[in-house]
Amino acid sequence: MFEELAGNVLIGQSGGPTAVINASIAGVVAEALNHDCVEEIYGTLNGVLGILNEDFVDLAAESQQTIRGLRHTPGAALGTCRYKLKKQADFERVLEVFKARNIRYFFYAGGNDSQDTADKIDKLAKEQGYELRVIGIPKTVDNDLPVTDHCPGYGSVIKYISTIVRELACDSEAMGRNDLVSIVEVMGRNAGWIAAGASLAKRRDHPHDPPHIICLPEVPFSPDKFTEDVQRVLKREKYCLIVVGEGLVDVDGNYVAAAEKTDAFGHAQLGGAADYLQALLNEKLPDLKVRTAKLGHPQRAAAHAGSKTDADESFLAGQAAVKAAIAGESGKMVTLLRGDKDHYTCETGLAALGDIANGVKKLPREWINEDGVSMNHQYLRYALPLIQGETPVPHENGLPVYVRLEKVPTEKALPPYEI
Amino acid sequence: MFEELAGNVLIGQSGGPTAVINASIAGVVAEALNHDCVEEIYGTLNGVLGILNEDFVDLAAESQQTIRGLRHTPGAALGTCRYKLKKQADFERVLEVFKARNIRYFFYAGGNDSQDTADKIDKLAKEQGYELRVIGIPKTVDNDLPVTDHCPGYGSVIKYISTIVRELACDSEAMGRNDLVSIVEVMGRNAGWIAAGASLAKRRDHPHDPPHIICLPEVPFSPDKFTEDVQRVLKREKYCLIVVGEGLVDVDGNYVAAAEKTDAFGHAQLGGAADYLQALLNEKLPDLKVRTAKLGHPQRAAAHAGSKTDADESFLAGQAAVKAAIAGESGKMVTLLRGDKDHYTCETGLAALGDIANGVKKLPREWINEDGVSMNHQYLRYALPLIQGETPVPHENGLPVYVRLEKVPTEKALPPYEI
Repeated sequence: MFEELAGNVLIGQSGGPTAVINASIAGVVAEALNHDCVEEIYGTLNGVLGILNEDFVDLAAESQQTIRGLRHTPGAALGTCRYKLKKQADFERVLEVFKARNIRYFFYAGGNDSQDTADKIDKLAKEQGYELRVIGIPKTVDNDLPVTDHCPGYGSVIKYISTIVRELACDSEAMGRNDLVSIVEVMGRNAGWIAAGASLAKRRDHPHDPPHIICLPEVPFSPDKFTEDVQRVLKREKYCLIVVGEGLVDVDGNYVAAAEKTDAFGHAQLGGAADYLQALLNEKLPDLKVRTAKLGHPQRAAAHAGSKTDADESFLAGQAAVKAAIAGESGKMVTLLRGDKDHYTCETGLAALGDIANGVKKLPREWINEDGVSMNHQYLRYALPLIQGETPVPHENGLPVYVRLEKVPTEKALPPYEI
Repeated sequence: MFEELAGNVLIGQSGGPTAVINASIAGVVAEALNHDCVEEIYGTLNGVLGILNEDFVDLAAESQQTIRGLRHTPGAALGTCRYKLKKQADFERVLEVFKARNIRYFFYAGGNDSQDTADKIDKLAKEQGYELRVIGIPKTVDNDLPVTDHCPGYGSVIKYISTIVRELACDSEAMGRNDLVSIVEVMGRNAGWIAAGASLAKRRDHPHDPPHIICLPEVPFSPDKFTEDVQRVLKREKYCLIVVGEGLVDVDGNYVAAAEKTDAFGHAQLGGAADYLQALLNEKLPDLKVRTAKLGHPQRAAAHAGSKTDADESFLAGQAAVKAAIAGESGKMVTLLRGDKDHYTCETGLAALGDIANGVKKLPREWINEDGVSMNHQYLRYALPLIQGETPVPHENGLPVYVRLEKVPTEKALPPYEI
């Protein structure tokens, strides 16, 4: 069938952490240990940085308890990075390290940029005739990777946000007298996937339930229409609950609240969309009381309100990556495939890394209602299965217990590298 | 023993909602129905506003299921208000309505201002010789009511915040390279009770666990010391996690980030303390990456991460209010009394409303460490029992299910009143 490749496994995490990216690591470790051809299982600290520095820890030395605990622990237990391999020398170093440590299986959990990095490493190994199997594992709360039906991390963040919206609604309902506006700012740089998820807070057949207005980057922002929308809601409701994504853009495609800084990949660092809307309403409708909350980075780490479906699929993706690599695949990313049955089913597939890298999946315009500020049944049908089940997080002394890796260092084979 | 007073019960909620104020309503209803002298049980919509307008709903008409569901439903199911009874005519109207509807028991759940209102109503009834029993029920996430050991609502908000801190720590740990600052802004106008609660996120005997810096209104803010503190932490840790209360003040006692608006009681409306700290660090230490989250009003509604101890005590306070009133007490507020045993016990007591009204309980200075940015074991011993147990919130279709009152209106006895 296929040639069995003996050697060591290396796992890395990259980009922003999520509530479930560690579950993929658990999946890789659990599956890899089933295969005799796998000799050592290493984790690289801080993604590609750990490869360049040969900072590998021994994952086989971790306790069963710890690996199991990764299934509900948020963050990225191996550390992550936003470092981009730039120069050819960096890539050469990666291969050099892989050869020195007999890495034959490389699993990289991350978003678009990380899959691009994995793709380049795979191609270079092929060019150099070094037998290496590279499989990407999807990860991003942004849900913007192409090909895959959805991304591990997304279900949990929208479950948390729609939980918050339901609760904030109880609070606002008690305080509002047709004069209260509550604005919740959520993540989402290029696509409104996360903000859209707030619509799950509506009860079935209650279209007037909060959130009353969702501001999406897919719909160019008009201050006048927004003000009218708020007034329309406040005629009907005691309060107006608004969810806004950080990447809100005006009709010219400029962020309404862009900061000056950019990150290592040249992406604009955003924030302040809620503040912008608040200032706008304070000016245009000064009689209203306008409150803001900015969920910030805690939203992507909120395992305590995480989706069990999401955590389980993230684990599954890790397992599938190992199975694919052992079966001889390389240069692929694991995808999640939704069944076409009435009831939700999910299995894994594979897609070429080149088809994933740097692509962006936009929220389909046809899933947004005509009003531009709410989602229709197509979106709800898509998203509702992703938030089912509650991640079983153990509590001790009143608080969730999350695990930490021991991070047992391994001996380096090469001299240091100048990054 | 005491004279049994037959008549109707009125319950109201006032001030900012919490995750557990509805549990007190459930406690009042459950207890009141045990007593034959109680004829009708009404709820007033939006606190004293509902009294002035005679907007009473029939709580006895609510289903058992709904009343039970109040034990885990955040917000204030009867609606609340920040309206302050000002003129003598308002107070006269209250008594007039009480007489017309044969209200003999009035339970008011709220904070300092609400207990003041209850006190005045009680005194006026006594002056006029109208037999009325007024019992206040403590409620505030701010935990700043005097006399009572703690306030229902506090345990849940600090459980949520310390949960968030633990999770954000996992995220920041993965991303930080001794250059990352995460700032979480929490509520707390005059006292640092809420911000202090974040310290529960530290594991026992791990003083270096996050939060690394807690900025409290009790400690005048010094930009220089703050900057040094951040640098000190980042020498040791990959990231610096800061929790700041909205009411941060400088050495002159001025809010560092005060907005211009004030609420109906003349309190300054705050917000932006995290933004202020971020701007400060951007200026003084421009190489750092500084992120902010503002938990906003969702924090006080976060029943999904609520404390069972807190919800149970809130229910108990409602029951105790009814028992006290039936036993002939009036002009009192239910207090929570901590036992002096090694293991935590809590029972209820009573205190004069006059001793509560408009008082403020400060966070004891001796519970704050010498460094001014962390809490000592005295605080931890105080707060840890309050977050024990997880409020059992039912989930349906992936989200928490909260109840709504039917709010069956009752017939008004009096002509309308001009507010």
